[in-house]
Amino acid sequence: MTTRKIDDTPVEAIDEILQKAWHAFQQYRKLPLTTRAAFMRAIAEALNENASDLVASAMAETNLPEGRLKGELNRTIFQLRSYGEACERGAWLDARIDRAQPDKAVPSPDIRKMLVPLGPVVVFGASNFPFAYSTAGGDTACAFAAGCPVVVKGHPAHIQTSQRVADIIQAAAKKTSMPEGIFTHVSGASFETGKALVMHPRTKAVGFTGSLGGGKQLFDWGNQRKEPIPVFAEMGSINPILLLPEKLSSDTPGIAKTCAASITLSVGQFCTNPGLIIGLQSPALDEFKEALKREVNGVLAGKMLHPGIAKAYVEKRSAALAQDGVSVVATGAQNEDQNDMSGVTTIASTTGAHFLSNEILHQEVFGPYSIIIACADETEMLSVIQHLEGQLTATMIATENDIRQHASLVEAVKDMCGRFILNGVPTGVEVCLSMHHGGPYPATTDSRFTAVGADGIRRFARPMCFQNWPDTLLPAELQNGNPLKIWRTVDNELTNGQIE
Amino acid sequence: MTTRKIDDTPVEAIDEILQKAWHAFQQYRKLPLTTRAAFMRAIAEALNENASDLVASAMAETNLPEGRLKGELNRTIFQLRSYGEACERGAWLDARIDRAQPDKAVPSPDIRKMLVPLGPVVVFGASNFPFAYSTAGGDTACAFAAGCPVVVKGHPAHIQTSQRVADIIQAAAKKTSMPEGIFTHVSGASFETGKALVMHPRTKAVGFTGSLGGGKQLFDWGNQRKEPIPVFAEMGSINPILLLPEKLSSDTPGIAKTCAASITLSVGQFCTNPGLIIGLQSPALDEFKEALKREVNGVLAGKMLHPGIAKAYVEKRSAALAQDGVSVVATGAQNEDQNDMSGVTTIASTTGAHFLSNEILHQEVFGPYSIIIACADETEMLSVIQHLEGQLTATMIATENDIRQHASLVEAVKDMCGRFILNGVPTGVEVCLSMHHGGPYPATTDSRFTAVGADGIRRFARPMCFQNWPDTLLPAELQNGNPLKIWRTVDNELTNGQIE
Repeated sequence: MTTRKIDDTPVEAIDEILQKAWHAFQQYRKLPLTTRAAFMRAIAEALNENASDLVASAMAETNLPEGRLKGELNRTIFQLRSYGEACERGAWLDARIDRAQPDKAVPSPDIRKMLVPLGPVVVFGASNFPFAYSTAGGDTACAFAAGCPVVVKGHPAHIQTSQRVADIIQAAAKKTSMPEGIFTHVSGASFETGKALVMHPRTKAVGFTGSLGGGKQLFDWGNQRKEPIPVFAEMGSINPILLLPEKLSSDTPGIAKTCAASITLSVGQFCTNPGLIIGLQSPALDEFKEALKREVNGVLAGKMLHPGIAKAYVEKRSAALAQDGVSVVATGAQNEDQNDMSGVTTIASTTGAHFLSNEILHQEVFGPYSIIIACADETEMLSVIQHLEGQLTATMIATENDIRQHASLVEAVKDMCGRFILNGVPTGVEVCLSMHHGGPYPATTDSRFTAVGADGIRRFARPMCFQNWPDTLLPAELQNGNPLKIWRTVDNELTNGQIE
Repeated sequence: MTTRKIDDTPVEAIDEILQKAWHAFQQYRKLPLTTRAAFMRAIAEALNENASDLVASAMAETNLPEGRLKGELNRTIFQLRSYGEACERGAWLDARIDRAQPDKAVPSPDIRKMLVPLGPVVVFGASNFPFAYSTAGGDTACAFAAGCPVVVKGHPAHIQTSQRVADIIQAAAKKTSMPEGIFTHVSGASFETGKALVMHPRTKAVGFTGSLGGGKQLFDWGNQRKEPIPVFAEMGSINPILLLPEKLSSDTPGIAKTCAASITLSVGQFCTNPGLIIGLQSPALDEFKEALKREVNGVLAGKMLHPGIAKAYVEKRSAALAQDGVSVVATGAQNEDQNDMSGVTTIASTTGAHFLSNEILHQEVFGPYSIIIACADETEMLSVIQHLEGQLTATMIATENDIRQHASLVEAVKDMCGRFILNGVPTGVEVCLSMHHGGPYPATTDSRFTAVGADGIRRFARPMCFQNWPDTLLPAELQNGNPLKIWRTVDNELTNGQIE
């Protein structure tokens, strides 16, 4: 692996970067949807061609294993291709046409609406996803599909990889004749760099994946601007798993095995990692703990992403374990070779009463950690759910009978999550239109948008309507002949046909 | 007209109001879409039955004439009915289904997504629309359609009317067996009341129509909460009209007549009132000024909504007229009988250079006021457009030839407006799906949402997805059989049919 020296971008350079992005915006937003998709496909192809180099670079910087990184790169390529396809299909534009009604008592004009891009988007790369939620990741793909130029702040923990991906995007932009300024890579770990990017008047939206502290800071800056802008921050969750009695008893060891695998996957470094397991105090729950202990005991600690994350894991875990009423159920094996990078799997346990009275136990411990909450009864279980903050996901391990018998629990779970999984695990986020990767605060800053799936394009677009324009002067998306053959709502009816 | 004593709601009562709304939410969101629509229709019918009483009440409180208020009440009724219909049609739910693919290399689970309501919505009534953007207005209708209970803060300027409408909503709720707490009316002009409503933890979204100062305050409160919530504030605009040369010359008096009618409509008290007219310095523009003067000279001042608005109009107008380089083109006739309520039509004029160097001239003067900007050339005209803040609307008076010859102007206008009108006026906001009544800040706090049309429902809903749920336990909206016959995207294809 060759590494290159990557200088921090001076804060003084940011004005020119955003001005260039703004000029690129004037050109890029006018390009046909097919041209945007072609650009995205060119990036996907180049990532694929450079896969071994990119994976090697990310392995060197992040401690993530080859298999995981290959999978993540493929996911990144799939995102670029599938969001590009969604861009071309055009359903995301929410095109609506209401034709003029000159014969009504009060005649109404012709009105046609579609989504248009917001402008330059600043994307902050994630530490735990060097490909899929970083430089050419989901936020960048959504912004390009929406018609927005992108300025990426590369994550300092994998800046070499970020720069390589940035070079690939630049080359793809050149190859497909994109306007200069369509994409810029910024490096620098300082507070000032991030702030200057968010506060610049030409920045029109922000995408972020990371910690609550980081995301909230960007959100506050975005709102404090003279012109506030949308800051979509996906800030993680503790992703509760609820164990309902009939299902738990039916296969306690199997459920424990599945949970253990999800908790330890990628050394627990997923925003969908299940950090909370909620059950009813019972022999079945005791058996579950024993089974989970057997699963976890054999797990050798993995290297975490970087020393800072490993240190934070140790500190947060220690703080949680030091709370009143918390005991350790199981720990995985330490890996002596890894020094300060090691993430030792840890399962804790407490009662519903202790959990309800102690907010420290509600906080995310980013890593292979989960706490089991043994509730005295269903009423306490409901209370625990009602006291949880917003979550990306919630999982229920339940039979149909369990679900019918615990309807109030099910309803309470719906209040606080973006994705509700039945008899599965929260880790593994499918990239498809039906996916919602978002949730009430603090899972994200705006529960109405998703970070995964082509619906994420909408974060970076706004409706605009044309009133009384002749057909020839309208964008192709809104013309009578429907040359792009997109689905549109015409006089309240969905159709992909032409209109007269 | 009988008036009743309406006490201010004590700030201490707000907790109980929101807790009740939260309990109602648990019931209301589970009701079928048709039941929500039936509730909305019942409100519409009762408003219709009580029309003469309501119009008389609003006339007494707002100075708005009978014809205008009758029209506004009919619009309010139409909104409730048409948003209820949209609610039933279900396209707004953005239902998406991706069926399981067990045979893929990495098998994928069944995932199904739809919009679900956010929770209790607080609505702040508008001073200038006692019906259509107040108690049973657009925000309330959108929230009910989304599945959210509503708490309305009645506008102090028409609190009697607001209370009457609230009583009608309560009766309709009872008649259609809605849960207690589905709607509550709060009165009180104090800062504390508004703040307590926005800051309450059970409040999940806010709708507001009014001034920039008021909307920005609510937006800041919403963001400063422990759990930030979306505050959609529609805060008005100066709604520029651009006069392009060929079209202006073709019918100068006719265009002046149309502009004058729009400026003076309802004593200029619309958020879409055209407060800015931009043209190129030329004999045609001089002729336009003369023609506008003739139109305006004959207009007798109308009574403004209330003394506070009339006072603010006089002050803001005086401030604008006192700026360097600003002259008065025309004023309407004073109406001596109206004392301090009178809104005298005023047309001012300045140069592009003066406008560009003075931000005071960019501010809204709420009332029958407009300023003509005479630009030295097209470059200056472009600069004027580029320096405007976000607008609800922009209007272009232009031939097709004008548009082709001034493409850069057209593109610059698109950057800053939500609705782009060709050869019309911005006043008159059609209620239909293709309408966008929103725009970049400061027109609204979030340009991605609309205050008018059924797409406004989305302000109060968020996606939620179900992973691996059996068909029988899914909401009807997502079941294979599609019992509600709604349009859904299944495996990336739109269909209103069943699936296997």
